[in-house]
Amino acid sequence: MTTAPAPRRLGELATLVGGELLGDPETLIHGLNGLEEAGPGDVSFYGNTRYRRQFEATRASAVLVSGELPARAGLALVRVSNPHLAYARLLKAFYPTARPAPGVRPGAWVHPEATVHPEATVMHGASVEAGARVGARTVLYPGAYVGEQAQVGDDCVLYPNVTVRERCIIGSRVILHASCVVGADGFGFAFNPEGEDGPEHYKIPQVGIVRVEDDVEVGACTCIDRATIGETVVGRGTKLDNLVQIAHNVRVGPLALICAQAGVSGSAEVGTGVVLAGQVGVVGHIRVGDLAKVGAQSGVAHDVPDGEVYSGSPAVPHKEWLRASAALGQMADLLKEMRALRRRVETLEKEMGE
Amino acid sequence: MTTAPAPRRLGELATLVGGELLGDPETLIHGLNGLEEAGPGDVSFYGNTRYRRQFEATRASAVLVSGELPARAGLALVRVSNPHLAYARLLKAFYPTARPAPGVRPGAWVHPEATVHPEATVMHGASVEAGARVGARTVLYPGAYVGEQAQVGDDCVLYPNVTVRERCIIGSRVILHASCVVGADGFGFAFNPEGEDGPEHYKIPQVGIVRVEDDVEVGACTCIDRATIGETVVGRGTKLDNLVQIAHNVRVGPLALICAQAGVSGSAEVGTGVVLAGQVGVVGHIRVGDLAKVGAQSGVAHDVPDGEVYSGSPAVPHKEWLRASAALGQMADLLKEMRALRRRVETLEKEMGE
Amino acid sequence: MTTAPAPRRLGELATLVGGELLGDPETLIHGLNGLEEAGPGDVSFYGNTRYRRQFEATRASAVLVSGELPARAGLALVRVSNPHLAYARLLKAFYPTARPAPGVRPGAWVHPEATVHPEATVMHGASVEAGARVGARTVLYPGAYVGEQAQVGDDCVLYPNVTVRERCIIGSRVILHASCVVGADGFGFAFNPEGEDGPEHYKIPQVGIVRVEDDVEVGACTCIDRATIGETVVGRGTKLDNLVQIAHNVRVGPLALICAQAGVSGSAEVGTGVVLAGQVGVVGHIRVGDLAKVGAQSGVAHDVPDGEVYSGSPAVPHKEWLRASAALGQMADLLKEMRALRRRVETLEKEMGE
Repeated sequence: MTTAPAPRRLGELATLVGGELLGDPETLIHGLNGLEEAGPGDVSFYGNTRYRRQFEATRASAVLVSGELPARAGLALVRVSNPHLAYARLLKAFYPTARPAPGVRPGAWVHPEATVHPEATVMHGASVEAGARVGARTVLYPGAYVGEQAQVGDDCVLYPNVTVRERCIIGSRVILHASCVVGADGFGFAFNPEGEDGPEHYKIPQVGIVRVEDDVEVGACTCIDRATIGETVVGRGTKLDNLVQIAHNVRVGPLALICAQAGVSGSAEVGTGVVLAGQVGVVGHIRVGDLAKVGAQSGVAHDVPDGEVYSGSPAVPHKEWLRASAALGQMADLLKEMRALRRRVETLEKEMGE
Repeated sequence: MTTAPAPRRLGELATLVGGELLGDPETLIHGLNGLEEAGPGDVSFYGNTRYRRQFEATRASAVLVSGELPARAGLALVRVSNPHLAYARLLKAFYPTARPAPGVRPGAWVHPEATVHPEATVMHGASVEAGARVGARTVLYPGAYVGEQAQVGDDCVLYPNVTVRERCIIGSRVILHASCVVGADGFGFAFNPEGEDGPEHYKIPQVGIVRVEDDVEVGACTCIDRATIGETVVGRGTKLDNLVQIAHNVRVGPLALICAQAGVSGSAEVGTGVVLAGQVGVVGHIRVGDLAKVGAQSGVAHDVPDGEVYSGSPAVPHKEWLRASAALGQMADLLKEMRALRRRVETLEKEMGE
Repeated sequence: MTTAPAPRRLGELATLVGGELLGDPETLIHGLNGLEEAGPGDVSFYGNTRYRRQFEATRASAVLVSGELPARAGLALVRVSNPHLAYARLLKAFYPTARPAPGVRPGAWVHPEATVHPEATVMHGASVEAGARVGARTVLYPGAYVGEQAQVGDDCVLYPNVTVRERCIIGSRVILHASCVVGADGFGFAFNPEGEDGPEHYKIPQVGIVRVEDDVEVGACTCIDRATIGETVVGRGTKLDNLVQIAHNVRVGPLALICAQAGVSGSAEVGTGVVLAGQVGVVGHIRVGDLAKVGAQSGVAHDVPDGEVYSGSPAVPHKEWLRASAALGQMADLLKEMRALRRRVETLEKEMGE
C-alpha cells in the first residue's frame, strides 16, 4: 500500500522477468507506466503493434518488448516472450502487498463453533457464523460475512461488506471484491393462482449452494446465486468483473472472463476460457462453447459453438453481424433506390402499354 | 440449513401436495431433483412437454405430472394440477428453514427509541435507528440497516448488508437479499448555470419514501430509489431479481416479475403481473400495461398495452420484432437482389430506347 | 427527516427564489408536488410546454413559471427564470436535512492513526483505517468503510455499507450512496499459458487510486475501479446514478450525468457535461466529447464528437439512428415491394422478348 516504491536497477528487473536486456543494467528505475504516461526512470511495455506510434514517442527509460525491435538511443529494451505478463510481474515486484497482521480483531464476531485458521485475519465488524471455516492467511475486511457452514479456503481476500451465504464453498486464492454477494437465493417461483390471499408467485426454495473454485476473482457488487438444488459453479481461474449476474445452477469456466454488467441466466453453461464482453446477456439453459467470445451488449439466445465469435442481440456469428450492421446503415439509401427503380419500371410499363 | 433432509414415504408426499399416486406409497424418497439430475430415491417434476425426452429418460423414482400420462414400470407418478408448484411445496417440506433464535444479539445496535418486536432477531452488526419499527419474527442479519422511522413488518428477512433508508416502509413476509438498497435518493437535478462556484447540477431533495408491500422479494444489489415527493411503490407479491434498478416515483406490480439487471426509469408504471426479462430498460413516465411481457434486453420507450408481448430496442410488438429481425438477416441478400434488378431495368430501358 | 414541514407564506417563498409573485402573498403553503399530484396549499412548477395540459388542470395554489403566462383565477403564479431550479430550492427550504450530532459513536472503529475531524460523525459499525482522514461535518453511516490512507473531504455523506478502498481521495460535499464501491481493483489480467498450475489469467496489480472531486454524487451499488497506475477520476459536480460501472483509468466529467446501469470501460474519457442515458455502454480507450449526449442502451464503440447526440448499438449520430430504426420497421414491406417489382420486371422482359 505504499505509494512510492523503492527504485531498482534495470538489470535486476530484466533478470526478474527472464528477459534479454539491451541497455545499461545500472539504470535506476523508479516506477512503471503506460507508453504515453511513462517518463524518465519508468519501465513500460509494448505488446501490440497498434501502439507502435506510442512506442516510438515514449519517454520511458526502458520498454518490455517481444521480437526483434531495434534498440533506440536513450531507450533500453528488455526482450521477453510476453511483455504484458512481464509488466504485470514487475508491478507486483514494485508494489508488494502487505498482508494485515493475523488474528481475530476486537469487534469481529466469530461463532464459537466456527473454525478460523490462526493465520487468518478477521477484522472488526466481520462475521463468521456457526460451522463456518476460514483458511490460512485469508483476510476478512469489516462487514464481510461468512454464513453458517460456509467454507473459505486459504489466501483469500474478502473485501468490506462481502456476503457469503450459508454452506457456500470458496476455494483458495479467491478475491471477493466489496459488496459482492455469493449465494443469494436463485430467482425461482411457481405461479399459484389459488394462494391463501389470492394469486401468488410461490417461492421455490433454493436449497443448493455456490461453489467458487481456486484462483477466482469476483467483482464489486457482483451476484452469484445459489442453485435451486445442487451447485452453481464458478470454475478455477475465472475472473468476474463488477456488477455481473450469475444465476442459479449456472456453470462458468474454468478460466472464463466475464466483463462488467454481463448476466448469465439460470442453468446456462459458459465454457472454458470464454470471454463475455460488457453488458452481454446469456439466456437460460444454453451453452456458450469453450473459447467462444461474445461482443459487448450481445444477447445470446442459442448455443454458441466452441471457439466462435458472436455479436448482436440476438447474437449471431460476428461476421454476419458486421454484414447486417453495415446493411442497416444503407437502409435509407435502399429505400430511396427502391422508389427510383419503381418509377423507372412504371415508365417502362407505360411505354410498353402505348 | 441441513444438507441431508430426512427421507419420507412417497404416499405421504402425494398426500401433502393433494396428488393422485400411481405407484407404491411405501417407496422411500430421499430428495428432489430435475428430471436429468434425479436418481433412484428422488422425486422430480414434469410440467412442460418440451422436456418429454428428459421425462422418458429420467432415473427418478417418482415424477409429479399433470394430465393423463401413462405410468411406467419402475416409475411412480403423482398426478397434480400444477407439477411445478407441487415440486416447490415438496422442496419446502424437505428443507424446512430454521429461523434463528429471537432477540437482540450482543454487537447489534438498537436505538433506545426504536421498537423491535421481542420475537424479532437482530444480529451483531445490524442497526435499527431512532423511531424505527421491526416486526415479529423478522430477522436482521449482520450489516443490515433500518434507518430512522423506517418500518419493517412481520416475518421479513433482511440479509447481510441490506440498507433500508429513513422513513421507508417494508410490509410483511418481505425478503431483502444481501446488499440491496431501499430508499437511496432518486436521481434528480436541476441544471443551474449560475451556481456559486460556476455551473452545477443542483440537487433536487428527494423527500419521499419507498413502500414495499407484503410478500415482495428484492434481489441482491437491487436498488429502489425513494420518491422525490410521495412514494415509490413495489406492489404486493412482486419479485425483483438481482441488480435491478427501480427509479424514483415508479410503481411496480402487484405480482410483477422483474429479472436481473432490468431498469425502470422515474415515474414509470409497471402494471399487475408484468414480466420484464433480463436487462430490459423502461424509460420514464410511461406505462407497461397489466400482464404485459417484455423480452430480454428490450428498451421500452412508449406505453405497452395490457397483455401485449414486446421486444427489441426500441421495443415493438414481439411479432413485428421477429419479422424485423428476420428481415435484418436478409438485408445483405436484399442489397444484392436490388442491384440485379437495377441491371435488368437498365437493360430494358436500353432495349426500349433502341 | 420530518414528514410534515411547517407551512409558509407564499410571499416569503417568492422572495426566497427571487421570483415575481402574481397572487396573494399571504396564501399559506403547506408543501410541494408535481402539477398532477398537487392540491390546495401546494406549490408546483411548470417548466416544459409538454406539460401544458397538466398546468391547465392543476389544483395547486401556486405554480412556479417562466415567461409571460397569464394569471388564472384561484392560481397564483411565481415568475422565475428557471422554474425547475426554483422548485428544487423550495424543496430544500421545506425539508431541511438534520445532520446527526458529531462525534465517534460507541461501536465505531477509528484507527489510532486515523484523523477524524471533531465535527465529523462516525456511527457504530463504521470504520476509518490507519492513516485515513475524514473531514468536517462528514457523516459515516453504519458499515461505511474508509481504507488505509484514504481521504474524505468536508460535508460528505457516506451512507450505510459504502466502501472507500485504501488511498482513494474523495473531495468535499460528495454523497456516496449505500453499498457503492470506490477503489476496487480494475479488471486487468495478462494471460499466462504457462502458470505454475497450468494456464492462468495473471493478475495485473492495480496500484493506482480513484479520485472523486468535489460535489460529486455516486449512486447505490455503483462501482468505480481504481487505476492500474495513476488515477481514475470522477470530475467535479458529476452525478452517477445507481449500478453504474466506471472502469480503471476512466476520466469522467466535470458535470457529467451518467444514468443507471450505464458502464464506461477502461481508459475511456467522458467529457464535460456529457449525458449518458440508462444502460449505455462505452468501450475502452475512446472519448465521448464535451456536452455529447448518448441515448439509452446505446453502445459507444468510437469517439463521439463534442456536442453530438448518438444512439444505437453500435452508436451512430441520432438522426442516422432514427432513420435506420424507421427503415427497419419498413423492412418487411420492402421485401414485399421488392418481390412485386421483380415480377413486374419479369413481365416487361417477357413482353420485350415477344
